[in-house]
Amino acid sequence: MERQVHVRVVSPITTLGFRRKDTLKSLEAPGLTVSATQISRGPGSIESEYETAMAVPDTVVRIVEAEREGVDACIIDCMGDPGLRAAREAVTIPVLGPCQTGLHVAAMLGQKFSVLTVLPRLIPQFENAAALAGLPSRLASVRSLDIPVLSLEDDLAATQSALVDEAQRAVEQDGAHAVVFGCTGLMGCAAGLRAGLLARGIDIPVIDPIPTAVNIAVALVRSDLSHSTLTFPLPPVKPMPGYDMPDLHTKAAE
Amino acid sequence: MERQVHVRVVSPITTLGFRRKDTLKSLEAPGLTVSATQISRGPGSIESEYETAMAVPDTVVRIVEAEREGVDACIIDCMGDPGLRAAREAVTIPVLGPCQTGLHVAAMLGQKFSVLTVLPRLIPQFENAAALAGLPSRLASVRSLDIPVLSLEDDLAATQSALVDEAQRAVEQDGAHAVVFGCTGLMGCAAGLRAGLLARGIDIPVIDPIPTAVNIAVALVRSDLSHSTLTFPLPPVKPMPGYDMPDLHTKAAE
Amino acid sequence: MERQVHVRVVSPITTLGFRRKDTLKSLEAPGLTVSATQISRGPGSIESEYETAMAVPDTVVRIVEAEREGVDACIIDCMGDPGLRAAREAVTIPVLGPCQTGLHVAAMLGQKFSVLTVLPRLIPQFENAAALAGLPSRLASVRSLDIPVLSLEDDLAATQSALVDEAQRAVEQDGAHAVVFGCTGLMGCAAGLRAGLLARGIDIPVIDPIPTAVNIAVALVRSDLSHSTLTFPLPPVKPMPGYDMPDLHTKAAE
Amino acid sequence: MERQVHVRVVSPITTLGFRRKDTLKSLEAPGLTVSATQISRGPGSIESEYETAMAVPDTVVRIVEAEREGVDACIIDCMGDPGLRAAREAVTIPVLGPCQTGLHVAAMLGQKFSVLTVLPRLIPQFENAAALAGLPSRLASVRSLDIPVLSLEDDLAATQSALVDEAQRAVEQDGAHAVVFGCTGLMGCAAGLRAGLLARGIDIPVIDPIPTAVNIAVALVRSDLSHSTLTFPLPPVKPMPGYDMPDLHTKAAE
Amino acid sequence: MERQVHVRVVSPITTLGFRRKDTLKSLEAPGLTVSATQISRGPGSIESEYETAMAVPDTVVRIVEAEREGVDACIIDCMGDPGLRAAREAVTIPVLGPCQTGLHVAAMLGQKFSVLTVLPRLIPQFENAAALAGLPSRLASVRSLDIPVLSLEDDLAATQSALVDEAQRAVEQDGAHAVVFGCTGLMGCAAGLRAGLLARGIDIPVIDPIPTAVNIAVALVRSDLSHSTLTFPLPPVKPMPGYDMPDLHTKAAE
Amino acid sequence: MERQVHVRVVSPITTLGFRRKDTLKSLEAPGLTVSATQISRGPGSIESEYETAMAVPDTVVRIVEAEREGVDACIIDCMGDPGLRAAREAVTIPVLGPCQTGLHVAAMLGQKFSVLTVLPRLIPQFENAAALAGLPSRLASVRSLDIPVLSLEDDLAATQSALVDEAQRAVEQDGAHAVVFGCTGLMGCAAGLRAGLLARGIDIPVIDPIPTAVNIAVALVRSDLSHSTLTFPLPPVKPMPGYDMPDLHTKAAE
Repeated sequence: MERQVHVRVVSPITTLGFRRKDTLKSLEAPGLTVSATQISRGPGSIESEYETAMAVPDTVVRIVEAEREGVDACIIDCMGDPGLRAAREAVTIPVLGPCQTGLHVAAMLGQKFSVLTVLPRLIPQFENAAALAGLPSRLASVRSLDIPVLSLEDDLAATQSALVDEAQRAVEQDGAHAVVFGCTGLMGCAAGLRAGLLARGIDIPVIDPIPTAVNIAVALVRSDLSHSTLTFPLPPVKPMPGYDMPDLHTKAAE
Repeated sequence: MERQVHVRVVSPITTLGFRRKDTLKSLEAPGLTVSATQISRGPGSIESEYETAMAVPDTVVRIVEAEREGVDACIIDCMGDPGLRAAREAVTIPVLGPCQTGLHVAAMLGQKFSVLTVLPRLIPQFENAAALAGLPSRLASVRSLDIPVLSLEDDLAATQSALVDEAQRAVEQDGAHAVVFGCTGLMGCAAGLRAGLLARGIDIPVIDPIPTAVNIAVALVRSDLSHSTLTFPLPPVKPMPGYDMPDLHTKAAE
Repeated sequence: MERQVHVRVVSPITTLGFRRKDTLKSLEAPGLTVSATQISRGPGSIESEYETAMAVPDTVVRIVEAEREGVDACIIDCMGDPGLRAAREAVTIPVLGPCQTGLHVAAMLGQKFSVLTVLPRLIPQFENAAALAGLPSRLASVRSLDIPVLSLEDDLAATQSALVDEAQRAVEQDGAHAVVFGCTGLMGCAAGLRAGLLARGIDIPVIDPIPTAVNIAVALVRSDLSHSTLTFPLPPVKPMPGYDMPDLHTKAAE
Repeated sequence: MERQVHVRVVSPITTLGFRRKDTLKSLEAPGLTVSATQISRGPGSIESEYETAMAVPDTVVRIVEAEREGVDACIIDCMGDPGLRAAREAVTIPVLGPCQTGLHVAAMLGQKFSVLTVLPRLIPQFENAAALAGLPSRLASVRSLDIPVLSLEDDLAATQSALVDEAQRAVEQDGAHAVVFGCTGLMGCAAGLRAGLLARGIDIPVIDPIPTAVNIAVALVRSDLSHSTLTFPLPPVKPMPGYDMPDLHTKAAE
Repeated sequence: MERQVHVRVVSPITTLGFRRKDTLKSLEAPGLTVSATQISRGPGSIESEYETAMAVPDTVVRIVEAEREGVDACIIDCMGDPGLRAAREAVTIPVLGPCQTGLHVAAMLGQKFSVLTVLPRLIPQFENAAALAGLPSRLASVRSLDIPVLSLEDDLAATQSALVDEAQRAVEQDGAHAVVFGCTGLMGCAAGLRAGLLARGIDIPVIDPIPTAVNIAVALVRSDLSHSTLTFPLPPVKPMPGYDMPDLHTKAAE
Repeated sequence: MERQVHVRVVSPITTLGFRRKDTLKSLEAPGLTVSATQISRGPGSIESEYETAMAVPDTVVRIVEAEREGVDACIIDCMGDPGLRAAREAVTIPVLGPCQTGLHVAAMLGQKFSVLTVLPRLIPQFENAAALAGLPSRLASVRSLDIPVLSLEDDLAATQSALVDEAQRAVEQDGAHAVVFGCTGLMGCAAGLRAGLLARGIDIPVIDPIPTAVNIAVALVRSDLSHSTLTFPLPPVKPMPGYDMPDLHTKAAE
């Protein structure tokens, strides 16, 4: 298994410049190449089920394109995992959602975990994600920073401080033994949150879902694993008026 | 509470003539008007998560339009409940998915229930729906007729016969005490299935989800109830490149 | 389906004048007639499992009588749903318990719900009801007003105020996105509670179980649905010393 | 703890001579006295929720009488545990239902268990009992002999043979590692079933719920334990027209 | 069933004099003899999964010896139930863990229960025990006194006072209706805790797991019950370098 | 993140030559070194809870040694995950059990999964593992090949053929969408099983737990993640008569 693994991170939002390219490049490691793309049709950011839904069609297109380019695995860069199930039906390479991946990794590392997200309105989304992952009993709580996605970087110190406070409450009030970022816009804040918690005597894993999902994707590729075609069978051939979708069956027949 | 209740059934597929208008009209009753519409952009029929996802954007548009026209409640005419959560964020009138509604009604009427659907590939969808409805312990099984949606009417006798056979297996092998149709294309087959089962000595409720959802929608309207704004808050104002979506906030401000 | 639906509300308590007739009449709507009756043997009000049990025999008699009079559906007017299972065995028309019905409706409308009941001693009853409904994961909490049933109307302002306070705590401390009255003696308080919560910025569904159950009963009748005879089969013919019960089998043979 | 423990077995049916006195006497052991009584108002036998409900009022009376006579604990002699919750509210001595007790003992002894009952119509009752006991995940199956209660002794060889066959199926098809009798009319059949299963190479615990509940009752009395007054508080003082119930509060005040 | 039942309590720690012999002797009752032993290889006390694991080999040896001496049942004297599953494979007499037993008894007596343990680090152990017992829904909370096992008796008044405070919090904040000691070092404190709680108006069962397990063991022996050989089959014959284990098969062949 | 990751595979059995060194070496990849060790005190192979328990003490010693040598992560080479929790308390580097890891990976890739193990007696172990992983709802079944561990390689063709047959039954009868090997002695059989299933038209992920755990360990190391110190705190300093354990605190103080 000497070959280089190529993981593509697909951003399901249309705001340009939200994720800096070098941030993702920093995830590269021996045997791992990371590339990035984003959708051109859909929401500027995702903070609702409505925006999640609108992000799906173009996200699936980007993932089909990635597979055709020879990419080994794709990560959807949003904790709503938009298009995860649809994209898995459309391609055979592993497609990972940072939410599903992060919840399972958290469950492997400690007794219960909390999700730290940006807005209270996203709480049901994570409760549903835990139920669909089969992990409802491990979710200690979902806590919100009450900061919109696109404002997370406006005052990074405030964001970091809110993270430490909410993580401490998750541990002390909700019984969390690990925390997972509930927005991929928080990528890069794990080391700071770890340090902030250690300063308060709390030593727990902090799961930064995008780096984690990229590394788990490599693990799957190296283990010759991808999602099940019984759960995610190829869609039937049918017209799709109003969308310019790739021909999934031609590709599959290659 | 003397007023007429107007329920709109929104078909999330682009195939014309799939559902005959008089079928839905037959659901009208004292105090109840039923109207219908369908999407113009999206899948010809829905038999995958991929097609479910592509149906959502236009389904939400139709539901927003319905609310603006003064419709009292909307039903999404597909057992995948496509766009249920997104549409509930966008409007304040009740939006019902026949799947979610049918599962709860089945749970009220008997100990466990089975879903009778069209294709094996849809089984995980119903298992997930039961989990999200909070009802995993009541789902006895999901059974498939192995007939594509658009072929259900090609040989109605074969469809009816397959329904009776699978329902009997659900009762005798899986412990079902009620059955729910797992495809709204089966609408109208309940009386025939009931008769077929009674001829075999099996007397159980057969839930035809569209008529049931229409009647439950009336019950909600008459009870002054709609979905929770805490679970389904109005989406934020943001550009949505590539889509021509209605301005949800203007409407909300009315 | 042009016919009038007749729903009978059966009060399982012996206190006269507890529920005013015009309150139930106000639930009538196009196509819906509502009538009422109550038991003559059993508890004055129901605030314990002991009283619930003593209410069952006569409640079943009233429901059997209703079916024989041609009533289309019965509602048991107590959140303990006394006699729900026994009565369903005895008749073929739909019998609804406001508790079971209210919990399923709440689960359809929001992520999690709380029950607001009258006395702390009733909390286990609602936890058990949620478990039997298959909905334990959706019950956020059960909160008590600490006011006995027959005193609810002594100081209606105090009752309303306690409702608003507990509902707010349910939302803010327990994560409820909807509330259900945990005593049918609270019937009629929904509009006031909604208004009180809106004044505090909380916009959630308030489920008043008797009106809701009446309207859901109409939906079931119009959908040609009743409870499953596999879950609720007719009891065997046997003597019942000490009780003057109707002959269930003669009726069934009609 | 030298004193004799007196356990009373209360039969909630009105058929005379169903349970022979010497059968219960055979359960006596050093430190244990067993006595018996039965109701005079209620069903001849219990094979439905309807009959279960009608058995409750007089069963509670018998248990209150037992406590007043100085009995140390009561067992309700029916797997429907009729009146268990109501009676626990009315007395402070331990009241055990053989169903609840048998399920917990089975869960202590093996991975999963099956219930072997008399009629298919009782299956939901045991599924609900497992849910209320908090043990749904441990119930492998409920299997029926298809023999009415009062016919169990008509052909004891047939009953024993049906027990062995169904127990074997429970082990081989359902994954049961223990079985619990699902009707107290099967009392005394455990040794025969054990022998029959051992002859087929199956060595599992067979829980005969009445002897087990009697012995567990002694364990609770010797451990100074009874049910919680928070779960089962004393009912309020209120008239109960149509019933001649003991004054629970006078007793409690003693 | 006239014979004397002999129960052996096996202490899985190497600290001498921790449990006074007369404490266990006080559990004797008509028909019941209690004896005690302890391991000579393993931890001084058990406050971690690491120590639990190190206690298992010698605990199993002691239990095999007890069976060979004719003891009727064994209790493992630690709430971690160390070696419970391994020992059950090795012997046919009942082996009870006070944790598993205590949780089931608590679940029989009230709606939900809390565990009161000595150190916060043990909380996950009890959550896992509840999951393995099939009882996760009945565990209200695990609360810690924050006192190491071997210091419990240093200041008995402080221990008792901490117990009352935490039990009250379990009832008032977590909804517990019963409490279970989460360390067998607390044996003997039940009466004091009951009295302390009654003085604060709280009347709930307090489960002292060792006395309870001893009494439940008698109940199992008198009911001719032991653990299932399907869940706990005899281990295969194989060398075990580094351990001097008894020959389980010779014994089994006796 | 340029450094080489060193993963140590610790075999918890004393049989020499069971796992060939080159098998593990074949898992190496760019950036990954794999080494191996085994215990010298404990069972020859593990097919019972008894043997699992006896393997733990020396397994923990090997893992503590690995951490002191600078190894980055350890894998315990047995599907019973012996010593996983004890070892995690003793070290700060990630320790992975192939069972826990394999179940989570399976849950990420498909709807439900089955475990294919060697002996029926191990079935409860996997049901318990799924419960402790928080994944009981995703376990479709545990199926047994009925071949002892040390005989798996005696007739590799028979082993492969039994694997394909049981995997097909898992899919067709139990609804599995993925399978996980339930014995690490099956390592290396995944490609053959995949091919055998594809020849029967079944395309599902086959999880070979040791390679998967090794690759997931790399992912954790690269993501700067290890288990939670709140779930797995360092054990207290105490004598451990009869064992020659390393001083965990000296190490921790380094």
